[in-house]
Amino acid sequence: MLRLRRLSIDTNRENVAFLARNCPVYRPAEFQALNKIEIQQNGRRILAVLNIVDEPGMIAPDELGLAEQAFRQLGLPEGERVEIAPASPPQSLESVRRKIGGAQLTQAEITAIIQDIAASRYSKTEIAAFLIASARFLSADEVLNLTRAMADVGNRLSWADPVVVDKHCIGGIPGNRTSMIVVPIVAAHGLMMPKTSSRAITSAAGTADSMEVLARVDLGIAEMRNVVEKARGCLVWGGHVNLSPADDILISVERPLAIDTQEQLVASILSKKLAAGSTHLLVDIPVGPTAKVRSLAEAIRLRKLFEFVGDRVGLQVEIEFTDGRQPVGRGIGPVLEARDAMAVLANAHGAPQDLKEKSLLLAGRIIDFDPALRGGGGHARAREILESGQALAAMERIIDGQGRNPVRQVPGELTAEIPAPSSGWITAIDCFRIGRIARLAGAPMDKGAGIDLLAKLDDKVERGQPLYRIHACFQSDFRFACDLAADSSGYGIDDREPPRYGAGGAP
Amino acid sequence: MLRLRRLSIDTNRENVAFLARNCPVYRPAEFQALNKIEIQQNGRRILAVLNIVDEPGMIAPDELGLAEQAFRQLGLPEGERVEIAPASPPQSLESVRRKIGGAQLTQAEITAIIQDIAASRYSKTEIAAFLIASARFLSADEVLNLTRAMADVGNRLSWADPVVVDKHCIGGIPGNRTSMIVVPIVAAHGLMMPKTSSRAITSAAGTADSMEVLARVDLGIAEMRNVVEKARGCLVWGGHVNLSPADDILISVERPLAIDTQEQLVASILSKKLAAGSTHLLVDIPVGPTAKVRSLAEAIRLRKLFEFVGDRVGLQVEIEFTDGRQPVGRGIGPVLEARDAMAVLANAHGAPQDLKEKSLLLAGRIIDFDPALRGGGGHARAREILESGQALAAMERIIDGQGRNPVRQVPGELTAEIPAPSSGWITAIDCFRIGRIARLAGAPMDKGAGIDLLAKLDDKVERGQPLYRIHACFQSDFRFACDLAADSSGYGIDDREPPRYGAGGAP
Repeated sequence: MLRLRRLSIDTNRENVAFLARNCPVYRPAEFQALNKIEIQQNGRRILAVLNIVDEPGMIAPDELGLAEQAFRQLGLPEGERVEIAPASPPQSLESVRRKIGGAQLTQAEITAIIQDIAASRYSKTEIAAFLIASARFLSADEVLNLTRAMADVGNRLSWADPVVVDKHCIGGIPGNRTSMIVVPIVAAHGLMMPKTSSRAITSAAGTADSMEVLARVDLGIAEMRNVVEKARGCLVWGGHVNLSPADDILISVERPLAIDTQEQLVASILSKKLAAGSTHLLVDIPVGPTAKVRSLAEAIRLRKLFEFVGDRVGLQVEIEFTDGRQPVGRGIGPVLEARDAMAVLANAHGAPQDLKEKSLLLAGRIIDFDPALRGGGGHARAREILESGQALAAMERIIDGQGRNPVRQVPGELTAEIPAPSSGWITAIDCFRIGRIARLAGAPMDKGAGIDLLAKLDDKVERGQPLYRIHACFQSDFRFACDLAADSSGYGIDDREPPRYGAGGAP
Repeated sequence: MLRLRRLSIDTNRENVAFLARNCPVYRPAEFQALNKIEIQQNGRRILAVLNIVDEPGMIAPDELGLAEQAFRQLGLPEGERVEIAPASPPQSLESVRRKIGGAQLTQAEITAIIQDIAASRYSKTEIAAFLIASARFLSADEVLNLTRAMADVGNRLSWADPVVVDKHCIGGIPGNRTSMIVVPIVAAHGLMMPKTSSRAITSAAGTADSMEVLARVDLGIAEMRNVVEKARGCLVWGGHVNLSPADDILISVERPLAIDTQEQLVASILSKKLAAGSTHLLVDIPVGPTAKVRSLAEAIRLRKLFEFVGDRVGLQVEIEFTDGRQPVGRGIGPVLEARDAMAVLANAHGAPQDLKEKSLLLAGRIIDFDPALRGGGGHARAREILESGQALAAMERIIDGQGRNPVRQVPGELTAEIPAPSSGWITAIDCFRIGRIARLAGAPMDKGAGIDLLAKLDDKVERGQPLYRIHACFQSDFRFACDLAADSSGYGIDDREPPRYGAGGAP
């Protein structure tokens, strides 16, 4: 038996245990070679990767140290006596191996995999194996089974209204903060829209990060219900209400690998929406050369998969292809994006028109879900609600309901403007690079960090004219971001005037 | 700048760095979310996964702690000033993504991946992504390119002799310690056989572990040459001479996942042999229901792939299919296997006949590589060398050359005999389970730990008669092994007499 010891080390979602090499009870090196240990006491059990400690003073010979993530998951107090054993690999790994071999997995197999992942029985390496094995050859039926399995672990919400609407953007476009405009419009119209959003994982801001600039987002389920009852909508962080937790774990491995497959994406999004109790869903698929979806053919394939799975799990799914050739709005980063969204809601002079029009397009299609509304009237209704100030009023109700942030947050004070290297027309903006620069500047951790775009696609610029401004709060971050921008701004400039496409249309 | 600090923590081949959360220079949480950091000073640079420390006293705010593996790889002294930055993912990951998408990779792409892996620029998760992506759809040309790329990183040996022979077993069969018999036979015949072997990763013993019971195995290249010059052969640990180091890294991820693909296997083995300077190679492919290769069809496919790649890299490869239905010999674990091998070499009464006959078969085929020998005479020659005691004398020369172990090691003193649950004939022995029990008993770390088989396939046993004896050196390991054996012995017993196959033949 070992004494449990909490080690305040943040291992980024990996369960890690520490054992002294001179442990008198167990042979740590033997465990480590077998990859993982199982820690148990009174029916509680977790798996962890083992580090062996020779460092003096860090851990006593009769102690088992657990880093934060593992300690929380085991849920026992410090000093408790625990036993460890070499972990048998989860049985469901055999199904992963079958998948690698090209087999079609059954619902039972997929459910077992997802339950093991949700219970942290998979190491990151094993999760990567599952993700890659299912990257290319997940059939539509397997995606359906995966969606159901993921929705079934974690909480499931249900609502009194027969129509509960939702929207989701598949991501990849910096500044695309339409939810903060769409939710208040739809709520003001009267449809119920209890929106849960994610925080950024590798991007510069998620909706939850931006909304947090204005209000609390870490609401529990009861609090969330309360807000929705009063305001018909909310904008909360999904991580706190534990919807489809296996999905969060998969994403934490998938994103750093930058491996996004359509199959995984559909299962991820639809499982979350299913768990959230939505009945109608609009999916925004930006299409562009540096977006997640790069061609119309890809977009159509993705739409079909969404429709196939949506139908079978009882979600009415509509798809909108949108312009993904550049960031939306001007600000990238929580404070800057919240500023843009509020400017649109307030009908402020100079509010970014592309963000406004895109939000109206999406809100209109969601309002069209309303059985009481005559077909096709949604877009006009959305515009009326936004331009009359009703959307802003709805947003204020939501902010008050969730708990207004008393601190007014401002953009980071370390700033640098990145100049155009030559005169001409802007022909390309690399969404990925812009996102990464904003991220290096400190977003989303520093709410005020990010990028403010001063020129967009098709604009004419003179040499030396600023393309965008970097905002940062810390010197080291500021330098990382400026270095990357100096290396390449992410902007393409051509001295010939480009042909024009319709605004907002897909390329 | 941070001060470099060595942390004596064994992180099992993953580069791990530790930064205090209150570091005044950098923002650790920001780095961590981006997955990895790059540590550099004067052109030296490594990548590491970042852990963030709140634990008091473990690391000062201006220190960067590196666990053993990372510290060794960076190769700078403690106290050195280093800079860190968020790591850009290795460029070659884009090729991994292309592979996931189904592309055929070029030699240049595969070389870039392997160089990045050898330079520890891939995390374990990224390595898993590469392994799984290439699990199903690596073409024969890609396997060839992978073999060349892996052989090209690390050392390449060359020898004066025109014929340099080698053997390799693809593994999976406990107790299959033929190299310790084959090398002395072949060396006594006069062919040059500079054998490098691995240590066990997930099995109970590698040849290097067993040989180490008798002699030093961690020889450098010059020492190894010296032994080969005097004794015509050697049995050293390959890890110390740094042949195909990328392969070692791939294996460290692949084995715990228990994902063995034929493509990876062929590239792994042939890259090692190519780097070792071999010209002729005999590959032992055991075939059996619990072996790595489970059917003749699989074995033939594997043979073709070995031959295809072997031909193109200039290695003459011969394949032998062997009986993989049960462990070979009696002992499983370093001391017990070394005992069996020495008993065969000494022509001792009671030496395991299956181990002897299999070794003669393999040695004979290798001797047939000798251009001076008339075709087909190898097997008789091998028997003559073994039974006349010349092989034992050659082994003693090798042991003396490498440095005889002055300590005589004995089997573990904690023993338990596992009884037959019923009377009948032994119809199956699960190689995987037997290996795992031996492993839990402490092998290969405790040289004396392991299993001694007391009954083999087709033997008749009475209820209660011992099937095997577990040896362990430590109480906790002893218990783990006995528990697993009690759960299921790994033996199948049938009360009907089984049909007989020829001894030593493939099923």
